[in-house]
Amino acid sequence: MINYPDFLKNIQTYKPGKPVEEVKRELGLKEVIKLASNENPFGCSLSVKRAVEREAVNINFYPDGGAYYLREALSDFHSVEPDQIIFGNGSNEIIDMIGRVFLSDGSEALAFEGSFVVYKLVTEISGGIFREIPLECDLSRDLNKIFDYITERTKVIFIDNPCNPTGFANKKEEFESFLKDLPDNILLVLDEAYFEYAKEHGVPDGINYIRRINPDIPEKNIIVLRTFSKVYGLAGLRIGYGISNREIIEVLEKVRQPFNTNHLAQVAALEALKDQDFVRFSVEMNEKGKLQIYEGLERLDVHFIPSYGNFVMFKVDDGERVYKELMKKGVIVRPAFGFDNYLRVSIGREDQNKIFLEKLGEIISKC
Amino acid sequence: MINYPDFLKNIQTYKPGKPVEEVKRELGLKEVIKLASNENPFGCSLSVKRAVEREAVNINFYPDGGAYYLREALSDFHSVEPDQIIFGNGSNEIIDMIGRVFLSDGSEALAFEGSFVVYKLVTEISGGIFREIPLECDLSRDLNKIFDYITERTKVIFIDNPCNPTGFANKKEEFESFLKDLPDNILLVLDEAYFEYAKEHGVPDGINYIRRINPDIPEKNIIVLRTFSKVYGLAGLRIGYGISNREIIEVLEKVRQPFNTNHLAQVAALEALKDQDFVRFSVEMNEKGKLQIYEGLERLDVHFIPSYGNFVMFKVDDGERVYKELMKKGVIVRPAFGFDNYLRVSIGREDQNKIFLEKLGEIISKC
Repeated sequence: MINYPDFLKNIQTYKPGKPVEEVKRELGLKEVIKLASNENPFGCSLSVKRAVEREAVNINFYPDGGAYYLREALSDFHSVEPDQIIFGNGSNEIIDMIGRVFLSDGSEALAFEGSFVVYKLVTEISGGIFREIPLECDLSRDLNKIFDYITERTKVIFIDNPCNPTGFANKKEEFESFLKDLPDNILLVLDEAYFEYAKEHGVPDGINYIRRINPDIPEKNIIVLRTFSKVYGLAGLRIGYGISNREIIEVLEKVRQPFNTNHLAQVAALEALKDQDFVRFSVEMNEKGKLQIYEGLERLDVHFIPSYGNFVMFKVDDGERVYKELMKKGVIVRPAFGFDNYLRVSIGREDQNKIFLEKLGEIISKC
Repeated sequence: MINYPDFLKNIQTYKPGKPVEEVKRELGLKEVIKLASNENPFGCSLSVKRAVEREAVNINFYPDGGAYYLREALSDFHSVEPDQIIFGNGSNEIIDMIGRVFLSDGSEALAFEGSFVVYKLVTEISGGIFREIPLECDLSRDLNKIFDYITERTKVIFIDNPCNPTGFANKKEEFESFLKDLPDNILLVLDEAYFEYAKEHGVPDGINYIRRINPDIPEKNIIVLRTFSKVYGLAGLRIGYGISNREIIEVLEKVRQPFNTNHLAQVAALEALKDQDFVRFSVEMNEKGKLQIYEGLERLDVHFIPSYGNFVMFKVDDGERVYKELMKKGVIVRPAFGFDNYLRVSIGREDQNKIFLEKLGEIISKC
C-alpha cells in the first residue's frame, strides 16, 4: 500500500446507506415518508422544473465555470459585488475549501457541540484540529463562551445559525455583541443554510456584516454560506454559495475546481431565485407544519427543542428503537447526531406530519 | 488577512471567461461554433434527455450519496466489484482527491510535458511537487523515460492516455512493458477520458490491469479514470469515476464529500451507459470528422498531430492571432496549453468542421 498522512488514517470511510427504493423493497413497504434530510416537501418552483426540462438538451456542454448569470443575479439580490461570491457543489464544498486553505497547516477550528457534522469531518480530512465548545443545559449556545476556547492556533470558527440538528438560533443583538470582539486573524464561517426559515424571528442576516450596513460593527473576516438545497428545493442538484470580502473569496478560488457547479444547477438556481413567491409559500407552510408537529409532540408528551429551521429535534426513551420502529412503519427520520435519544424530524406537508405523529404515537404508547 | 500556507500563495486564482452567449453579444455574432472543449457534438442519448426531464420533479431530494444504481451498473459493465469504484463531480474531482490524499505531505507527482493541466494544478493546491517528463521531438511519449524521473519522493504518476491536447496515445505493448517495472509504492493514475475513441486503435484498456486478466503482469497500484463528459455527452452534469483496488478506493473515499455527485448526473449516467449504440455512433462519426479535418488541414498545408481523441492539435505561425481571428469569425477553438503556436480543435459535426476549415483557410491565406 502507498503511504499517506497519519491524520487521514484515523478517519472512517463513509459507508453509504441504501437508497429509499431499496429500503422499501427490503421492508416490503408500499409507501415511505422521508422526513430525514430537511428537504423542501413542496418540491421546487414550477419554473425551475421547466427550466431543467428545457436545458436537458444542453447537458453535453461544459458548465460555465464562472457561473456568470447566476453570479450577476445573486450580486443584485444581495447587494454585494460579483467577486464577493464563490459557488460550491453544495455549500458543503465551500466548507471543504475553507478547511483546505485555512486548516491544512494543523490550525484549529472551533464549533459548538452538536453542530453540523461536516465541520468536524472537513477539519480532520484537511489536517486541522477540531475543538468543540459545550452547549448550555437547555442545548442553547452562549456565543461569549467562544472566547474561552480561542487559542493562538484558532483560525476558523464555524457557527451554523440556525443550528442543525437542534434548531436553536442566536439572535441579532447577541451576535453583534460577539462580533465586535472577534479577532481579525480568525475566519468566522456563518452557515445560514436555514436562514430563510428564520429571518422573521430576530435571527441576523450575516450578509449585512459583509455589506457593512452598520458602521458601528468593525470589519471582520466573515464568510456567510447559503444554499439552494433547503427552502429553494434543489438539494439533488448541489449548489450553494459563500459571500465574503474579496480577499477571502480570492484565496478560496485557488482551490476551487473550474467546473464544480453543474449546468442544470446553475440554471435551476437562477430560476429559483426569481421565484420568491415559492420561497414565501414554503416558509409559511413550514410555520404551519412546525406548529402541527409541536402540538402533536406535546399531545404525546414528547420533549422537543423549539426550532428556527425546517426540522424539529425531539427526545424519546430509546432513540435507536424508535428510529427503527418508525422506519418499519414507513416513516424515515434521523438520529440527531451527538444527542443521545434525540431524533430529528424534517417538517413535511400536513399529511406527512400527521402520519409521522400517528406512527410515533403508536410506538410510544406501546412502551 | 488571515494567514494560509505559502504553497497556495503562488497559485494564481482562476479567472473565468465569459459564457459563449456574452462573447456572441460582444462580438455581434449571430452564430458561434464552439469546438473548444472536446464535447460530444451530437449531444447525448435521447433516453438520457428523457430521463433528465422525467427526474426534474425529484430535484428537491438529496442525491444518493453512494450512487447505488449507477455503481451496480458500472460494476456489471466493467466486471469489477462495486467497492472498486469511486465517483467524482467529474473525474477532475477524483484527481483532486488523489492529490489531497497522496501529495499533501509534499510528495512528488510526475507527468509528461503538455499533459492535462489539472494534474499540475491539483498537485500544487495539495501542497505537492509537480515534475514534468520531456516529450520526444515529435511530441510522442517514451514511457521508459519515466523511470529516469522517479525519486524516493515520487508517489503519483499521471498518464492521460490518449493525451489531451496532443492526441497522442501509448500502445498496449509499450504500456505493459512499462507496467512490469512500476514500483509498488507509486500510484499510477491512468486517465482514460478519451478511451472510447481510442480503444479500436491498440490503446490499452487500463481496467484490465485492475481486473488482472493477464497473470503475467504483477498487481500494481493503478487507478483508471473514466468520464461521462466526453463520448457520453454529459459534460454539463459533472460525473466521472475511478476504478482501482479496494485499498486505494477506501482511502480516497475518506476525502469524498457524501453528496458529491448530483441526482440528475447519476440518473443520466445510468441511462447513458445503457445506450451503447449512441457511443458507437459518436465514435464512428468522430472517425469520419477526424479524417475530414486531417484532409482539410493537409489541403491548407497545416501541420497537425494524428489524434486518438475527439480533437486535433495543429500548428500555425501565430497561434494567438489565429485563435482570435477564428473567434471573430464565430469559431471557438483553444490554444493548446504548453505548446507554442499550436491550437486544439474539437472534432465537430461535418457542417461544423467544414466551417472551421473554411474560416481557418480564410485566415491563413491572408498571411
